[in-house]
Amino acid sequence: MKVLVANLGSTSFKYRLFDMPAEVQLARGGIDRIGGEQSHCFVEIGEHREEHEQNVPDHAAAVNLCLSQLTNPEWGCLESADEVAGIGFKAVFAGNLSGIRLVDEELLTKMEALADIAPAHNPPYARAMRQLRQAFPEIPLVAALETAFHETIPPENRTYAIPFEWQEEYEVKRWGFHGASHRYIGSRMAELTGKDDLKVISCHLGGSSSLCAMQGGVSKANSLGMSPQTGLPHNNRVGDFDPFALPVLMKATGKSLAELLEDLSSKGGLLGMSGLSGDCRDLEEAAANGHERAQLALGVFHSAIRHYLGAYLTVLGGADAIVFTGGIGENSVSLREKVCSNLEWAGIRLDAERNKSASDEAQIQADDSNVQIWVVPTNEEIVVGRQTVETIEGRS
Amino acid sequence: MKVLVANLGSTSFKYRLFDMPAEVQLARGGIDRIGGEQSHCFVEIGEHREEHEQNVPDHAAAVNLCLSQLTNPEWGCLESADEVAGIGFKAVFAGNLSGIRLVDEELLTKMEALADIAPAHNPPYARAMRQLRQAFPEIPLVAALETAFHETIPPENRTYAIPFEWQEEYEVKRWGFHGASHRYIGSRMAELTGKDDLKVISCHLGGSSSLCAMQGGVSKANSLGMSPQTGLPHNNRVGDFDPFALPVLMKATGKSLAELLEDLSSKGGLLGMSGLSGDCRDLEEAAANGHERAQLALGVFHSAIRHYLGAYLTVLGGADAIVFTGGIGENSVSLREKVCSNLEWAGIRLDAERNKSASDEAQIQADDSNVQIWVVPTNEEIVVGRQTVETIEGRS
Repeated sequence: MKVLVANLGSTSFKYRLFDMPAEVQLARGGIDRIGGEQSHCFVEIGEHREEHEQNVPDHAAAVNLCLSQLTNPEWGCLESADEVAGIGFKAVFAGNLSGIRLVDEELLTKMEALADIAPAHNPPYARAMRQLRQAFPEIPLVAALETAFHETIPPENRTYAIPFEWQEEYEVKRWGFHGASHRYIGSRMAELTGKDDLKVISCHLGGSSSLCAMQGGVSKANSLGMSPQTGLPHNNRVGDFDPFALPVLMKATGKSLAELLEDLSSKGGLLGMSGLSGDCRDLEEAAANGHERAQLALGVFHSAIRHYLGAYLTVLGGADAIVFTGGIGENSVSLREKVCSNLEWAGIRLDAERNKSASDEAQIQADDSNVQIWVVPTNEEIVVGRQTVETIEGRS
Repeated sequence: MKVLVANLGSTSFKYRLFDMPAEVQLARGGIDRIGGEQSHCFVEIGEHREEHEQNVPDHAAAVNLCLSQLTNPEWGCLESADEVAGIGFKAVFAGNLSGIRLVDEELLTKMEALADIAPAHNPPYARAMRQLRQAFPEIPLVAALETAFHETIPPENRTYAIPFEWQEEYEVKRWGFHGASHRYIGSRMAELTGKDDLKVISCHLGGSSSLCAMQGGVSKANSLGMSPQTGLPHNNRVGDFDPFALPVLMKATGKSLAELLEDLSSKGGLLGMSGLSGDCRDLEEAAANGHERAQLALGVFHSAIRHYLGAYLTVLGGADAIVFTGGIGENSVSLREKVCSNLEWAGIRLDAERNKSASDEAQIQADDSNVQIWVVPTNEEIVVGRQTVETIEGRS
């Protein structure tokens, strides 16, 4: 079965085509600047790779382009677009409509109604899914909600200390996000160690970041709460913040609540603190050159990661392994060093040399560490691919 | 020098009179239901104790009553009210006007302007202080801001990931509160252990609760952030919460932002989750009898304490001692047991019997615990008394 796994952005569409259940990647490609005058397109199928610019007005046109690439008579990998059994997407938030599910009107309406929770994600995702439903009514669309993996979080780690009925009636709870990535790390760690009852703290650090406490591959806590703006500082989103600061800021700035929340979801995080960039690589370079606010932003980021790391050690009663993943987690040697420093009291010791030379999947703890420390590249797409197959097969 | 340490409530006034620097408590008393038809008054001086009801219209009248008690010719402890060298108060929040300071117009104006941050505390405190300034212009009034102790918190633990200028211009940062209590625990632990470089995690658990990470008696992190509504769940205040849930709740309930924040500061916490009570004693009894929401509320509370405990172990690089204080911390055997369970990975082991029999100041760790665990009754009043003396002496 061939399934397309799509990564939707407000003006981008990236995809991978998998042959399942073998999990062989047949193709990947992407289109940027959708709706702009000239969109940048690339595709990679076997040995063939090409890039070009062309006009791609919307996400339906992007999928059409994708299907024409996949069926290209010279270098394509499909005879016909009919071979695509389904398209799977990561979707962010639809409240109680969580889990893995076929995209339908109920889901889209709910995603749109909850745009306040995921303003950067829900509106463009819902818009793109609507276009695809209309353009390709014959292809099943499967949404893998990021919250799905976290349905196992126990009540004591899910519940805000709010009037009880707000949770029951208005779905206000710590939902958790980044489900596909943490789920992948959980299952991959079981494969890598040969143990399926591991206590793992997964650190997904990238444009958006979260820690997840997992036992036996099951989520017990996630640093993302009701919205994807919580927990650790993100590239430009705030992380944990105090709602009672809002009226003070409204009076001081003259801005509305909506304007302040927009600022917090686009002008905060590493970007807001540093005033320089939301990209850790830029900040690490600037910090090394003495840029004080870059140093501050990184200091807050490292401290927040350590905060949740310590907290999740108490959730699990100690850990078997700590895993770094995501663009920053996989690549920042200095971040991993800072985060793992001074944790000997918990039996956690990094090996500086192994940390520096780590590539692909690697263990980087010292020989006398009680806790394994890993770098493991994440693979959200394969998780969505598996879930898409399960959902399509479950339907038939 | 005789100093009066006052504890202001919106309709109450409690006091202790200290002889300093000997730190001898000469008297204590209190007046409840100020402004009501009949206020309840009690006083304890030496062997004399009495209670009665009388009309006490406002806080100035309460202080007048207090002074007449202290100077009672039969059982009082002062010849004249002139002997009171100053009145010290805990005050909650005045932004950058932190520290220990004489009460002046600038401070009162700032406290009133920041009422949104501490709605339950700032307005009644400022109102009472205004009355006392007018009624007793000759007595120095000293405000010990709860934030003062936390000025040593390093930037990485103080900074929200917000646009940088919000911190600079609008004083939006993790201020920290409960300064008098944590400061007392820090200095008391140095006395009790004979060591002044201890790494201590102080757990002040009461109607309002916070954890503080201290090194050498100096604050490094506090679970209370910009406002006293953050961190752990409190008796009826929310604790950590996601601001992005607010627009969802506004649409769902039809309430304004101000109404929702009022709910979060008076109908949340243990009360909101349980629907029963904000008092841990009630909840522990109900939970033992199978009340599910009392069990939920306690579970969330315990989990939040463990969350910050783990986080603060990473702040300090391990701890020498964990201290339980405040009404709940000093008295709840079951809470201490729950919070300290399953922490062997960090070398923390409670002794069940010592925990049960603890009274006054007691060590309750097991013999093979690497970390000391203490119960230490707090004494915020003596801290404010000391600070009041220092401030008055610094002025003259």
